[in-house]
Amino acid sequence: MRTPLEKPADVQRDELVQALATGELSLHKLPETLSAREAASIRREALEQAAGTKTSGLAHYSFDAEAVSSSNCENLIGVAQVPMGAVGPVPVRGDYIDDDRYVPLATTEGALIASVNRGCATLRAAGGAVVRVEDVGMTRAPVFRTSGIRESKSFVAWVEENEEEIRTQIEATSRYLKMKDIRPFMMGSTVFLRFRFATGDAMGMNMATLACNRVIQDLIVPETGVSFVSLSGNYCVDKKPSAVNVQEGRGKRIFAEVELDKEVLARYLKTNADDLVEVQYRKNMLGSTAAGSMGMNAHYANMVAAFFVATGQDIAQVVEGALGTTCIEARGDGGVYISIFMPDVPLGAIGGGTTLQTQSDALSLMGVSLDPDQPGAAAMQVAELLGATVLAGELSLMGALSSHHLASAHNELGRPTPPSNGHADAA
Amino acid sequence: MRTPLEKPADVQRDELVQALATGELSLHKLPETLSAREAASIRREALEQAAGTKTSGLAHYSFDAEAVSSSNCENLIGVAQVPMGAVGPVPVRGDYIDDDRYVPLATTEGALIASVNRGCATLRAAGGAVVRVEDVGMTRAPVFRTSGIRESKSFVAWVEENEEEIRTQIEATSRYLKMKDIRPFMMGSTVFLRFRFATGDAMGMNMATLACNRVIQDLIVPETGVSFVSLSGNYCVDKKPSAVNVQEGRGKRIFAEVELDKEVLARYLKTNADDLVEVQYRKNMLGSTAAGSMGMNAHYANMVAAFFVATGQDIAQVVEGALGTTCIEARGDGGVYISIFMPDVPLGAIGGGTTLQTQSDALSLMGVSLDPDQPGAAAMQVAELLGATVLAGELSLMGALSSHHLASAHNELGRPTPPSNGHADAA
Amino acid sequence: MRTPLEKPADVQRDELVQALATGELSLHKLPETLSAREAASIRREALEQAAGTKTSGLAHYSFDAEAVSSSNCENLIGVAQVPMGAVGPVPVRGDYIDDDRYVPLATTEGALIASVNRGCATLRAAGGAVVRVEDVGMTRAPVFRTSGIRESKSFVAWVEENEEEIRTQIEATSRYLKMKDIRPFMMGSTVFLRFRFATGDAMGMNMATLACNRVIQDLIVPETGVSFVSLSGNYCVDKKPSAVNVQEGRGKRIFAEVELDKEVLARYLKTNADDLVEVQYRKNMLGSTAAGSMGMNAHYANMVAAFFVATGQDIAQVVEGALGTTCIEARGDGGVYISIFMPDVPLGAIGGGTTLQTQSDALSLMGVSLDPDQPGAAAMQVAELLGATVLAGELSLMGALSSHHLASAHNELGRPTPPSNGHADAA
Amino acid sequence: MRTPLEKPADVQRDELVQALATGELSLHKLPETLSAREAASIRREALEQAAGTKTSGLAHYSFDAEAVSSSNCENLIGVAQVPMGAVGPVPVRGDYIDDDRYVPLATTEGALIASVNRGCATLRAAGGAVVRVEDVGMTRAPVFRTSGIRESKSFVAWVEENEEEIRTQIEATSRYLKMKDIRPFMMGSTVFLRFRFATGDAMGMNMATLACNRVIQDLIVPETGVSFVSLSGNYCVDKKPSAVNVQEGRGKRIFAEVELDKEVLARYLKTNADDLVEVQYRKNMLGSTAAGSMGMNAHYANMVAAFFVATGQDIAQVVEGALGTTCIEARGDGGVYISIFMPDVPLGAIGGGTTLQTQSDALSLMGVSLDPDQPGAAAMQVAELLGATVLAGELSLMGALSSHHLASAHNELGRPTPPSNGHADAA
Repeated sequence: MRTPLEKPADVQRDELVQALATGELSLHKLPETLSAREAASIRREALEQAAGTKTSGLAHYSFDAEAVSSSNCENLIGVAQVPMGAVGPVPVRGDYIDDDRYVPLATTEGALIASVNRGCATLRAAGGAVVRVEDVGMTRAPVFRTSGIRESKSFVAWVEENEEEIRTQIEATSRYLKMKDIRPFMMGSTVFLRFRFATGDAMGMNMATLACNRVIQDLIVPETGVSFVSLSGNYCVDKKPSAVNVQEGRGKRIFAEVELDKEVLARYLKTNADDLVEVQYRKNMLGSTAAGSMGMNAHYANMVAAFFVATGQDIAQVVEGALGTTCIEARGDGGVYISIFMPDVPLGAIGGGTTLQTQSDALSLMGVSLDPDQPGAAAMQVAELLGATVLAGELSLMGALSSHHLASAHNELGRPTPPSNGHADAA
Repeated sequence: MRTPLEKPADVQRDELVQALATGELSLHKLPETLSAREAASIRREALEQAAGTKTSGLAHYSFDAEAVSSSNCENLIGVAQVPMGAVGPVPVRGDYIDDDRYVPLATTEGALIASVNRGCATLRAAGGAVVRVEDVGMTRAPVFRTSGIRESKSFVAWVEENEEEIRTQIEATSRYLKMKDIRPFMMGSTVFLRFRFATGDAMGMNMATLACNRVIQDLIVPETGVSFVSLSGNYCVDKKPSAVNVQEGRGKRIFAEVELDKEVLARYLKTNADDLVEVQYRKNMLGSTAAGSMGMNAHYANMVAAFFVATGQDIAQVVEGALGTTCIEARGDGGVYISIFMPDVPLGAIGGGTTLQTQSDALSLMGVSLDPDQPGAAAMQVAELLGATVLAGELSLMGALSSHHLASAHNELGRPTPPSNGHADAA
Repeated sequence: MRTPLEKPADVQRDELVQALATGELSLHKLPETLSAREAASIRREALEQAAGTKTSGLAHYSFDAEAVSSSNCENLIGVAQVPMGAVGPVPVRGDYIDDDRYVPLATTEGALIASVNRGCATLRAAGGAVVRVEDVGMTRAPVFRTSGIRESKSFVAWVEENEEEIRTQIEATSRYLKMKDIRPFMMGSTVFLRFRFATGDAMGMNMATLACNRVIQDLIVPETGVSFVSLSGNYCVDKKPSAVNVQEGRGKRIFAEVELDKEVLARYLKTNADDLVEVQYRKNMLGSTAAGSMGMNAHYANMVAAFFVATGQDIAQVVEGALGTTCIEARGDGGVYISIFMPDVPLGAIGGGTTLQTQSDALSLMGVSLDPDQPGAAAMQVAELLGATVLAGELSLMGALSSHHLASAHNELGRPTPPSNGHADAA
Repeated sequence: MRTPLEKPADVQRDELVQALATGELSLHKLPETLSAREAASIRREALEQAAGTKTSGLAHYSFDAEAVSSSNCENLIGVAQVPMGAVGPVPVRGDYIDDDRYVPLATTEGALIASVNRGCATLRAAGGAVVRVEDVGMTRAPVFRTSGIRESKSFVAWVEENEEEIRTQIEATSRYLKMKDIRPFMMGSTVFLRFRFATGDAMGMNMATLACNRVIQDLIVPETGVSFVSLSGNYCVDKKPSAVNVQEGRGKRIFAEVELDKEVLARYLKTNADDLVEVQYRKNMLGSTAAGSMGMNAHYANMVAAFFVATGQDIAQVVEGALGTTCIEARGDGGVYISIFMPDVPLGAIGGGTTLQTQSDALSLMGVSLDPDQPGAAAMQVAELLGATVLAGELSLMGALSSHHLASAHNELGRPTPPSNGHADAA
């Protein structure tokens, strides 16, 4: 039961709107007695007033505003409605899924879904996408200051000698968390400890962070006396493209592949092995080299972003998840072998945005559900689905480029050309 | 007027659902006579049937399904509802905006908005964020094959000599498009031409792509006889982190800064100059160096992603937009200077996802509107708003890390701690 | 005429040796009355005494010790004798050389010269190496501090507006120096100005540095009032591998190529197109990608280092000079096309070590001589010779790897296997 | 005893010179009956004739031409005389050396030795350079082709299961070689195995290569049936700047540091903590970031190159050895802490060029000698000496830059300014 407000609701509401609109009241200082939906409505009206405009769709949401306000989004004002389409069936030949599944993708970029869907048809014609995922684990790397090299080395030695005690304390913070290892990196008076964790079905960054903080405060600092500088030392590396994540991995490491014969290339991708291999060579290999790019691929980012939005992953982690290398090799009589490699994909099947209504719907539609007997398996399924989807999108765009159909892709795909100020299928 | 269906609607509907669910019918092959909303409903039901599940929120959208299906999202099945919150007022001191504005952010990651909002309060206390944006322009780099170095060099020379003719043909493809320049890069038998365009208020990738295709097909190939390999040669670089984009820029190049005195640091960020500068040094500088990271910052990706989702930008371009370097320097008596630098931010105020209902709402709430007398100004406003928002988020997280409050940020910010399988404010 | 010494020469000599050996006297504090050769002898003896050892070859040099002491090497103690071998004739098909030349290489790594020489034979059989060089120019990038973004932007604007005045002052410092352009790069309160110069036949770093210093002290700082932080701001970039040098070039940009038919591949390299292309793909492309390497080549560094030592280049610039990308492509009936690309090669035909006796000998043996009517042409010749030599070495090693002959290269090349603690031809 | 030649020696000699000069005879095809010195003389004369020039110093060498021809340098024509100077005493406070030593450096770049020597005086005034070295080990990474992901994974699994057998076979190839571990990296159909070895006092690349070849040919290929593509797969990484070497190390990983108080800074480096820290920040940190550089230092390459030439290391490995990060931090009352970090330094005390006469002299002068009871210790000493020398050079140049004395360094150091076409102390 909420306590009665002192003024009539509509009067109070107007005053609150006014106070927010003028900036007198902070967005997060609305009375806690308001429901999350009411608060969102008041904030929205205030913003409308401040901007002298009216919104038309922000209020049109069906998620649980209380839960969302508490766990996902402060200062709620409404919803961003991102259109969700589907591709598939996507033929996944993995260790966790050996089945054909539909995959929902949320995007605003015309032609992307049509293109990925063409890739799915290609995969089906070729017997499916072989997918393998390694559960590298979530990482977090706090940074410490010492007096110099000698203390840095003795600190690292202490950590190595006390790994079991560290593990024990860390794993006491959550029953879902297992510490895999600690990778130290030192330069002069600076020491990074890159902790790596198995986090079950969760992406796991929060539990990793909390566990690191606990063991640093309770054990590492008291025992060693080093100065604790920051809970994240950017050697984690979260949401930045980095060499260490490519080398060591982070989250899931995903591999997928397919062989396409001459007929499939011609029928589904309107191309042939020679042209496809040449685009691969001059674009993905030489172009990325010329550009000093960490992504030797055509457009992983498109599929990863659309998949992450649809399934409630941390969208900022697209930055990491989109790294990787595509290989296309001539094989057999006019066929090709195509593989993708994604070294650094944080994702989960529980927690964060995955529990939201539509995002949870998307996971359900892919047939992903938590299995209490196999913790972590649902997240591996999500990764396998992503891998197959990225492969589908990659081969479709590479096909379009090699047959010089990118610019005309919209017409081909049975849709009117978007206005010239729109955005197209990326490359 | 739609033509009458041959069977009763409900019978036909069931058959279509069934055909899709079994994979007999392709997702994009539903009868064109169906409305986009009906088609989405049928696809959704088919996916539910295929997965043996029911969805709860996907149908809850208010955008114009016909327009969305045609321009943004094929195989529509519904909506991803991403919660939208607001931060602000954000005090922007730019060339295009000199005002305090509320900024909507769409995210599922608890604590992010609260943290950015704390940064906004800090900016307000410090007199606002100085922001400057350079309109570098959209790029697209097709790749060509020659017989070798000699032909590559003569091809490049031809392009330089014929730049005016190329410009003329390109600018004939759209009245919004101006060609800025062409940057060639050659290695052996491979030549990249990185075209750079002013694209007005649009992000502009589609018009850039179409224009490149046209001038290649109509002028460059016929006149030079070189082999055209791919419309994108990965030297563009779209949606991959790359050195060339950092050096040359792409989209908008954004700078923002603020000075914080001792009192503001203590009151708003619970920290002091020494601690903040040390975290900057060991995390953003040394940690990123140790990691071989292209991002010398704490978490641009979080703000960029939330801003891009809210305002209908191409979400996959978060990969580029999140690159950049934060500087924090001691200044004055216990104060600091903090700046951000974002070299590679593609964004727009028209086209793509910006025209969708809620995304358009978000732009309106920020006070962004197209000015026919000043084409391009609205996109510059969007960039200034993003710059100030990223600065706010960056200084807030850096403050939290330097005062060791990251792990406890949730409580501080007046919210319950999320479940340990959730995700926290990134770092 | 030297002034007479106060003590007998041998007594004074012993005292000096003693004083140096114990560290009482600094190495550079020997009386200036001593000849350079005598001083070297005293220092050498002192070092021998300090180390309790005798040297056997350090005194065996024939260069002009006075000149060397004054311009190349302080605290002279003698000579490092690096064995010099030759390869060739190297068939160079360039703009500055269209001839077959012998190329001296100085190295201590067994099998390297034999391998490069095999590459030269291959080039001869294939009609020679096409080489093209671009004279990008020497760069130097001082760094400045401003109060922030606004001052940084106005400073950059000032530089652009005053480019002619800057050029005039710079070019007054040396008649060999021409300023090409200034590339600014700013982040917050930091501004880099990357000056680029044509430096005739000299590598030119010293004159570039002096000219920058002059114009900064005399013009830029007085006129703008910005703080001058450092004459080098690491955006030059000297002797570090860097993206900006790859994108923009530094020194010379070198291209070379050759086509090898099936017979040449079989006879000279004991390989075939398929195997060679596969090694190129999996090693130079994928391996370098996997490694996060800036060098997509097999071993440019070996040839560049041996060439730089032999010809008196700045050996530390091997770090830059060795960057680059090799391409190998199947062509024709069982043949290949192979090209090299070296974006960042500082070198000269005058100044620095090039004037030393043996280094000057090496340049002469290659037929390089300064042409007063064509300043800069000699340096371009040096670059063309290097390009052809690198191509020869690259194709030879790639051939050896593709035919699995690397490990047995020593025997094949008619030489006994070196002891197992030796070093082999690199890869 | 040599067999008598059929013709009088001078006639034969003239004919050989002629044949070489015209290219009729290959450089390596001289009669084996000739002594190495005679052969060199003939080749030299031939090159002189071909170039129409005379050399003046190439013949002036004292090394054992037979040994050099056989193990270090094919097609010998003479010597590159690189001037050798000395710096020191260098106060090394390491685990293998705790002593003051003179260090010979071979260079042609005026002012370098004087600058490093100033750094040595600074180190002495500050109590010496703390140095620590980790013996990471030499690496070699062959590359293999499989049919795809599944075979790649089973191949990697086989390697892991058979690590002991692989180790046994590898260690049978040399009693100096110990296999440390194997790091696999796979992408699609490509697998790299990065072998890491302890190689005693040798740099060890040759023995690593031979051992890899043996175990691949005798065990890995026969047992697994995968296709062996290349003995080096560029994931080693030899002589290219790479992320994997920075992360994992190669050769030696070197740390060194010193604290300098206010007086030492003022007296020896003519600077102060504030200026030095600012140059560090804007040049080594921000400048390297702006440049996309892998070297966050001022000029490691200069010291590494001069040290490598003097001591007979593989000069091409300067490319790797020069990578690393300098830190400078304000400490105490007007003092600073400065550290260097060199992650990737291949070097040795035996084998390769170290056994040559003058290079061996240089090692002796540093007091380095092999200790049969402590294999590997001599190489660790070499690394410690290098670390202290690099630190000395780094702090000296940073001091010169911070006091704006770089351009005037030559005069200060008691030497005439070199001609403006010369090269200066790099930065």
